[in-house]
Amino acid sequence: MTAPAPPAILPGTVTSPRGVRAAGGHCGIKPDRSDLALVATDGAAAAAACFTTNRVQAAPVLVSRQQVRCGRAQAVVINSGNANACTGPAGLRDAWEMVDLTARALGIPRDLVLVASTGVIGASLPMERLRAGIPALAAGLGPHGEAAAEAILTTDAFPKTGAVQIEIGGAAVTLGGMAKGAGMIHPRMATTLALVTTDAAVEPVLLQHLLREAVDRSFNRISVDGDTSTNDTIFLLATGASGAPLLRDSHEPGAVEFQEALAALCRHLAREVVRDGEGATKVIEIAVTGAASDGDARRAGEAILTSPLVKTACGGMEPNWGRILAAVGRSGAAVDPARVAVAIGGVRVVEGGIGRRDRLEAAAAAMRAAEFAIAVDLGLGTGNWVGWTCDLTEAYVRINRGYLT
Amino acid sequence: MTAPAPPAILPGTVTSPRGVRAAGGHCGIKPDRSDLALVATDGAAAAAACFTTNRVQAAPVLVSRQQVRCGRAQAVVINSGNANACTGPAGLRDAWEMVDLTARALGIPRDLVLVASTGVIGASLPMERLRAGIPALAAGLGPHGEAAAEAILTTDAFPKTGAVQIEIGGAAVTLGGMAKGAGMIHPRMATTLALVTTDAAVEPVLLQHLLREAVDRSFNRISVDGDTSTNDTIFLLATGASGAPLLRDSHEPGAVEFQEALAALCRHLAREVVRDGEGATKVIEIAVTGAASDGDARRAGEAILTSPLVKTACGGMEPNWGRILAAVGRSGAAVDPARVAVAIGGVRVVEGGIGRRDRLEAAAAAMRAAEFAIAVDLGLGTGNWVGWTCDLTEAYVRINRGYLT
Repeated sequence: MTAPAPPAILPGTVTSPRGVRAAGGHCGIKPDRSDLALVATDGAAAAAACFTTNRVQAAPVLVSRQQVRCGRAQAVVINSGNANACTGPAGLRDAWEMVDLTARALGIPRDLVLVASTGVIGASLPMERLRAGIPALAAGLGPHGEAAAEAILTTDAFPKTGAVQIEIGGAAVTLGGMAKGAGMIHPRMATTLALVTTDAAVEPVLLQHLLREAVDRSFNRISVDGDTSTNDTIFLLATGASGAPLLRDSHEPGAVEFQEALAALCRHLAREVVRDGEGATKVIEIAVTGAASDGDARRAGEAILTSPLVKTACGGMEPNWGRILAAVGRSGAAVDPARVAVAIGGVRVVEGGIGRRDRLEAAAAAMRAAEFAIAVDLGLGTGNWVGWTCDLTEAYVRINRGYLT
Repeated sequence: MTAPAPPAILPGTVTSPRGVRAAGGHCGIKPDRSDLALVATDGAAAAAACFTTNRVQAAPVLVSRQQVRCGRAQAVVINSGNANACTGPAGLRDAWEMVDLTARALGIPRDLVLVASTGVIGASLPMERLRAGIPALAAGLGPHGEAAAEAILTTDAFPKTGAVQIEIGGAAVTLGGMAKGAGMIHPRMATTLALVTTDAAVEPVLLQHLLREAVDRSFNRISVDGDTSTNDTIFLLATGASGAPLLRDSHEPGAVEFQEALAALCRHLAREVVRDGEGATKVIEIAVTGAASDGDARRAGEAILTSPLVKTACGGMEPNWGRILAAVGRSGAAVDPARVAVAIGGVRVVEGGIGRRDRLEAAAAAMRAAEFAIAVDLGLGTGNWVGWTCDLTEAYVRINRGYLT
């Protein structure tokens, strides 16, 4: 029995599904780049969300966490350039005003508006810019998913979008998404800021369950620098405009297909975030097998995923397997060094815990690719895990040295 | 009541205490730098040790762990340039042969020899060089602590040595030490490779207890990059040659003074390791107070200590307190953002969780110093913790990109 191939990622955006309009533009938070995105559905959509696990949470996270509880939303407003985090009660007032401005501009109830912010921590939002900018964007809503994806970027080098199409009950269903993020990326949270839309019809409780699971298999398995943000948010809106039958629980026909499509799209967006990792030149898949448990596999994988020494060696295209073993050894996972095998770019450089010097050159050659895998087999059991990281380069330091100035 | 001032750190080395001789030189493991150190005491000394907590442990760690159990040692042999880690059964044979070569050269029992290695992981030791090098060094033992400190370095820019003098029972007691380490530095282990000697007379069981406590207050509170090594070892040898009364338990007169002197010397050596952190230009003290518990203070402190974003901002002399709050927030410690205060270089940049923009310039000026503190008060309780880290610079990446080649 082979697992079904994951659905193909197509070009597309949050406006690819039926019933979704968007706009993106410049309202003046950043000096000259696009900084405000608005996404609206035709009528209230089923809504789900995952947020940062950081205990320091930005004002928009606190607001949206409360707003999404009812499981319905009709609009998402997102600004970049300012995270509205660590801004105290005034920041909370500003986040609520963004909700109100959006509700008023669209003529919808305020409890159907979600809000997110990303950018510098600790600065107040320039509300006068948003008071002018939100109504202007609302007037220009249309099939402008690309403009919205552009407007949520911060240190990103490129917008991250994609779409997936499946069939449910004979109806064509589309999922579209956008994400931002290049630094402060780490597992164990809905890392990054992302929005996925679909014209599938899904009950909110199921939608939340499916999103949580998809995030665990995608955004929760990437790391750029081990730091986690105060603002991480992913929203999922389902308009039902495809005409496909309503999905109510995960055993229904179509639910598995929808789950796989959602996970594939999230994985694509998450890998795009890693590919755009600050200063990164490579995407590295970390695959751990043979662990005593899945938990051990995750521990070992995350230790490799976040090791500055492993990531730096990847940038230098150096098959420094000693650093990989050192990371696994400190991870807390059960390890018997004599049973460990490591393959880099498909080349087995460690067998039985001992290096194969004669294969280092072949491994170094494999590391010249823009994407390669580090596969670690612990030889102890059946636990496994996979995740994605990028290399650590001098450019990462350059980018983050003078972020505020 | 004020705490007694910590004892002053004096110039000195492992040969400053009476009854200790050393030698260091080049035996050919590295192409052209000093790579072999030998330290011997006049008669068997009380011996204690702490080792890496990494589950992948180098052969010399496995050997010395067994050797030190009897609580006595008369010689320590250390090579740099090759870690003898991940070398399988052959590596274990090589580590034992280093012990035998040293015992034979000095004419002492093999169970009184400790061994340590540091350098590249996964390569076999060139034993023919050691077979010639160890007897040569043994013939040249003398007051050569500086040469020994030089011989244990790898990517270090400078040797790390120091001494402390106290009085126990009317006798002058000296402690001297050396350490190496610039990368793969992280808390939760006897991080680095270090040797401390003293002419105090201390029962081995007490010596082990005192060393463990001193390491917890020094080497276990520093981080360069969050990676932990397969080889970390610290040895402590007490010759008793000072003529001071034997210390048997921690309540005896002199034991507290010895403990404080040992901790001060270890803290000095640990800070020297941080100061020499790969690519580092600054030593940053992280002090957490007001935590709900000491454990929470440690969690919050270690999160700041290892945050690439905080460390990069320190290199750029940017008072990016948002990143400090984000690190504390993800640490797992109880945090109420509204109660957090942060001072950078003595300048309070956050009060009640909100940034003081008017003080950022003063904080940035304070960050120009080669050493400064980041003090975080969580405002919740009395838990506190202090540790030391360095800034993350482009040079760190340069150094680690092509380590093998």
